[in-house]
Amino acid sequence: MTIDELGEFGLIDRIRSLLPNPGSDVVVGVGDDVAVLRASSDRLWLATCDVQVEGSHFIRERIDPRDLGWKALAVNLSDIASAGGLPRFALVSLGLPSGLPVDFVDGLYAGLREEALAFGVEIVGGNISRSRHGLFIDIFLLGEAPRERVMLRSGARPGDCLLVTGALGDAAAGVSLLLSSEHTLAEGYRRRAESRRDRPIPRVREGALIASSGLAGAMIDVSDGLAGDLGHICERSGVSARILAQALPVAAENRLLSQRIEGDEWRLALSGGEDYELLFTAPPGAAERLAERITRETGTAATIIGEILPPGTQPECVLPDGRVAPLSGGGWDHFGKESGRGQP
Amino acid sequence: MTIDELGEFGLIDRIRSLLPNPGSDVVVGVGDDVAVLRASSDRLWLATCDVQVEGSHFIRERIDPRDLGWKALAVNLSDIASAGGLPRFALVSLGLPSGLPVDFVDGLYAGLREEALAFGVEIVGGNISRSRHGLFIDIFLLGEAPRERVMLRSGARPGDCLLVTGALGDAAAGVSLLLSSEHTLAEGYRRRAESRRDRPIPRVREGALIASSGLAGAMIDVSDGLAGDLGHICERSGVSARILAQALPVAAENRLLSQRIEGDEWRLALSGGEDYELLFTAPPGAAERLAERITRETGTAATIIGEILPPGTQPECVLPDGRVAPLSGGGWDHFGKESGRGQP
Repeated sequence: MTIDELGEFGLIDRIRSLLPNPGSDVVVGVGDDVAVLRASSDRLWLATCDVQVEGSHFIRERIDPRDLGWKALAVNLSDIASAGGLPRFALVSLGLPSGLPVDFVDGLYAGLREEALAFGVEIVGGNISRSRHGLFIDIFLLGEAPRERVMLRSGARPGDCLLVTGALGDAAAGVSLLLSSEHTLAEGYRRRAESRRDRPIPRVREGALIASSGLAGAMIDVSDGLAGDLGHICERSGVSARILAQALPVAAENRLLSQRIEGDEWRLALSGGEDYELLFTAPPGAAERLAERITRETGTAATIIGEILPPGTQPECVLPDGRVAPLSGGGWDHFGKESGRGQP
Repeated sequence: MTIDELGEFGLIDRIRSLLPNPGSDVVVGVGDDVAVLRASSDRLWLATCDVQVEGSHFIRERIDPRDLGWKALAVNLSDIASAGGLPRFALVSLGLPSGLPVDFVDGLYAGLREEALAFGVEIVGGNISRSRHGLFIDIFLLGEAPRERVMLRSGARPGDCLLVTGALGDAAAGVSLLLSSEHTLAEGYRRRAESRRDRPIPRVREGALIASSGLAGAMIDVSDGLAGDLGHICERSGVSARILAQALPVAAENRLLSQRIEGDEWRLALSGGEDYELLFTAPPGAAERLAERITRETGTAATIIGEILPPGTQPECVLPDGRVAPLSGGGWDHFGKESGRGQP
């Protein structure tokens, strides 16, 4: 059997089964966005890593190295944000092909530095290795959180409202612009989509506020597409969910583009991937208050998009005409048949 | 200018210059084997990462995936050992080509699990990514140490003795067996060299003992070759050093092989790389006592191989016939002209 047949999540389950049970200082081990480690009696460390690989995540000739540095750190910041933690320290592991211009490394670190300063992260080390077959930048990020304030995928309860920050589908729209000869988009939206693709904004302040409010249940960042990441919350919390398409924060231009290239106006928003927004839950009595507070204190919109249901049914999306579409758990599986919706 | 022209250490210096100055919780940032981070008033976290890249560090068809898993973790354990810390938590970032048999991942984790259990490390997370152009395994390791007991490269003083654990040059001899048609080695030594190449033993217990003894000054692990790693201690401590070739713990078979393939019987021991022994310093009054204690409590030999000199001269090696050979700082520079002595 090959890893493609097993799929990314099958492979993660298999790896988990190969490892011993975690000890008492491991609050959360393999399988969540971050590892949660007991640091002292009142603090937890959050540890995560994510990589950008040439040929899989970017094409070297077509990416600005500053954007690559920014994005490599952003995807990790987003994981710490999804736990409600504060990012602190990063290690940068570079695999560099010989002949690479030093300017490229300079640009990479310019992007890293800019974002690290913006989010209070210190780059404290790393590794440089030769990589004959292509460049990669792998980042390990350590964050911290007070005990009892770490947000996980497992905290959703039936009846909770489902909320999301910002807007959905724009990064996927940006990716589609790389792949198609689509030129009919309004210039303003084109720039927004490209910016969300190249310079995703991790919702660090929003995540910390959601965690510290004490009002939220579960949280995850939307990296593989809303449908897939909602699936992770449902699976870990033992619940189901219903989304209202009409409530989704999706630009009209995004729906038009999605209809043209995917034949479905909600496709980019539901399974596009790489939005790096936060998807979270809160009880009905608190959800609206929490959304208002996020918008007021961070300037980022927060929208109620559906509700958590008891287990037993597949998560679903109610379309504006009343039809109900089941949400496949897929999202962006890096190995399975659903592959290829991320940046090429 | 390309990264090859700048060289690995030039590139690290350049990266350091591109980053802001470290804040007060960063005890040691970019440039040592590990980052040292303040965790609480009496504890420090040690963070390090190192990667094994297909085509640079191993050939997939020729390596046992268990050995690859073992080695990927061992090189990181060795960095924590060199700081005298206790390894605690690891994240494993995998870049996997499509079509890879799941058996390979199983083998990789069997090696990781075996070593993690042997050294008290927990694998708490990681990442899986597609890598079209080759497999890599990047490990991020967190360790801890009591304050005031972290060993760095910078603690050597003129007059100190220079010591090393175990034996030198065997891993490099093992690598040379992959590359040459050398078949005249004694079978026992051949197995030892292959084992040191494929399953290096990180000196974790030895490092912790050296640090906790309070007797040692500087410490580093010998990953790039004794000459190069001694150069790092000299540079960071602002000192020079003299090694006595005759005192080096090198097998007679190793010197014979080195003479045959390198034209110099000390070459493999001085610059072979990948020994993962510990190189450390201690004042003359304490060195012998410390060496004896290491051997008694861990079963690993520790040998006085030279002394630390005041700055101003190049580090040197005194050969058995009285000739003095300057030690080039090179060691194994992953990008510069000295490249290629590591495992292909």
